[in-house]
Amino acid sequence: MKRIYLDYAATTPVDEEVIRVMNEIHRDIFGNASSIHLDGRRAREAIERARDKILRKLNARNHKLIFTSGGTESNNTALKGIAFRRKRGHIITSKIEHDCILKTCEWLEKLGFRITYLPVDSEGFVDLKKLEEEIGNDTILVSINHGNNEIGTIEDVKAIGEICEDKGVYFHSDACQSFCKTPIDLEEMKIDLLTINAHKIYGPKGVGGLVIRDGVEIEPLMHGGGHEFGLRSGTENVPGIVGFSKAVEIFKEDDIRKMKKLRDMLIKGILELEDTKLNGPKGNKRLCNNVNALFRYVDGEALLLYLDSNGISVSTGSACSSSSSEPSHVLTAIGLDPKDARCSLRFTLGKWNEEEDVRFTLDVLEEGVNKLREVSALKG
Amino acid sequence: MKRIYLDYAATTPVDEEVIRVMNEIHRDIFGNASSIHLDGRRAREAIERARDKILRKLNARNHKLIFTSGGTESNNTALKGIAFRRKRGHIITSKIEHDCILKTCEWLEKLGFRITYLPVDSEGFVDLKKLEEEIGNDTILVSINHGNNEIGTIEDVKAIGEICEDKGVYFHSDACQSFCKTPIDLEEMKIDLLTINAHKIYGPKGVGGLVIRDGVEIEPLMHGGGHEFGLRSGTENVPGIVGFSKAVEIFKEDDIRKMKKLRDMLIKGILELEDTKLNGPKGNKRLCNNVNALFRYVDGEALLLYLDSNGISVSTGSACSSSSSEPSHVLTAIGLDPKDARCSLRFTLGKWNEEEDVRFTLDVLEEGVNKLREVSALKG
Repeated sequence: MKRIYLDYAATTPVDEEVIRVMNEIHRDIFGNASSIHLDGRRAREAIERARDKILRKLNARNHKLIFTSGGTESNNTALKGIAFRRKRGHIITSKIEHDCILKTCEWLEKLGFRITYLPVDSEGFVDLKKLEEEIGNDTILVSINHGNNEIGTIEDVKAIGEICEDKGVYFHSDACQSFCKTPIDLEEMKIDLLTINAHKIYGPKGVGGLVIRDGVEIEPLMHGGGHEFGLRSGTENVPGIVGFSKAVEIFKEDDIRKMKKLRDMLIKGILELEDTKLNGPKGNKRLCNNVNALFRYVDGEALLLYLDSNGISVSTGSACSSSSSEPSHVLTAIGLDPKDARCSLRFTLGKWNEEEDVRFTLDVLEEGVNKLREVSALKG
Repeated sequence: MKRIYLDYAATTPVDEEVIRVMNEIHRDIFGNASSIHLDGRRAREAIERARDKILRKLNARNHKLIFTSGGTESNNTALKGIAFRRKRGHIITSKIEHDCILKTCEWLEKLGFRITYLPVDSEGFVDLKKLEEEIGNDTILVSINHGNNEIGTIEDVKAIGEICEDKGVYFHSDACQSFCKTPIDLEEMKIDLLTINAHKIYGPKGVGGLVIRDGVEIEPLMHGGGHEFGLRSGTENVPGIVGFSKAVEIFKEDDIRKMKKLRDMLIKGILELEDTKLNGPKGNKRLCNNVNALFRYVDGEALLLYLDSNGISVSTGSACSSSSSEPSHVLTAIGLDPKDARCSLRFTLGKWNEEEDVRFTLDVLEEGVNKLREVSALKG
């Protein structure tokens, strides 16, 4: 059975072109980029070319990019990096951040930092007025994600950045889900620290980046040989880094248009089913590949497994907390009661999906929803 | 010109068999291991098979293995993980550790932890009596590397482990250079935390591991989705992890014998040159692939560049601090004066070296040493 993968927000397959360049690096540019000899210098050049390419994509003229092992490390580095540097203070984030932001904040709270979790509206947008009110003299950082991983909300980071700049507070944004899928211009948006990663854009797992505005000082998360401007020690993952930049390079506008079309087709089809509702915003303020819907009276995990047994991979929410039995903190933050949150599913599209995938998924969904509602009616 | 790579301690090329399995994973098992659907479960199974394989290699029956992004992360996790868990206390390490141990200790010192840097003898062996004396009631951790990355000293970790067990103190060892090249039996050696990585054993860059004895509690370095037993968040690098376990699986005893033979041939040849001296121990207590020698009156970096221009890659010390102009802290710790430390070079062999590589290197070395001594005599 050919499987249909609709969980591209969890991770994507790697593009063949990316695999090809990584294999070239494995074979030909295997040196340690910190070595002085030719093998080392060639690795160093490959890294610096990759770094420039990614910075150009972001129009980052006054920023440096440090390569990390992924989004979680970048987010941990941003928050702990600022916190340990400043030693005390207040951090503002939102209630719908990824676990790696929230759990880091909880940990920093235990160390004595004060944390504010901003509420969001029913579509997941952060309350900008509340943000402005909450920024105080002791605020050291605001961290708000760019594109939400569960419900696809694209926050107005330009407006958030302007507020932060105005108040003289650093602004970090987690762009793991939005990078390449939504324009990011670091000169226009006043973002001081930006998290990006590769495995959501057809690049390899195990590599990400943290973009840092010049002058912003952070304490490294990993101490050691002083790699990456002294901010992230550890032998550079040259094939991963070059693969990352290749993935950025080959990301196409056409693919975004295609994903949007499939997204809207899937949303339309789902809303034609009885007792369904779209979670998150409509239209242009939603990530091009995200669909999240409530199927009332249907256990989300049961529906996921029904789709899975029919060859379709979807998710109940963030992959990272999918083993948890708690209802999604994102869905409850936008106002769903825990029961409805448990009756929701996330579908995330990719460049390799086709219309027939969406049509087949809608058929199986209709079947599954009806069957599971019968069972729950019997049970009820 | 065919190049001769003699810097395998900095990093190794990746074995074709490892590249092959990583490509398979990239193509067929691309899911997020935390996803519930089939694509996720297949990734999970691949990771767990890899984990078992590596634990078996170490005879680790009462340990768990968490995958990290490499040796630096593993070492940072071990030290900071114990330190943050215990909140205060005393850590003992040695003067010849890798920078990622020393810089982490310096950072912890700033946070209020007390650190003791044990001296070593002229061959790099830690003074066990001194270790025993230094362990106090407030000591929370002893961290001593297994095989030294610069001079190849294989510390007596069994004896160190016994002292630590006797005193009720956790023992961490950095085995990045020794893993697979030297037997490690975690049941026999009383090691509580062990750092290993892939890119020194023909595996990929960007993946490593920290082995942790059951019952040893650490604070995670990265907070988030709760991956890796809640101890290391971040989407698992499935291809890297499987590649790592493949590298462990195919490491051959024969290659060790071959490296030892070439090592001894290279040492013999170097010592036949005038005014040379071996740095580090002789014989079986030296890593199978390490040669470090002093070439008196010859600037190490100049000799490195001479070899490089003749197609031979060697190192002045740790790649990670090779851009530093300081003399090696390892060489000064074993008693070399800074001038002699600067006149030393490290040669590290790998399974793809042959006798003719050693012969050619010895020829170029003799030539280079003579030429550079002429120049320095003229200067002098």
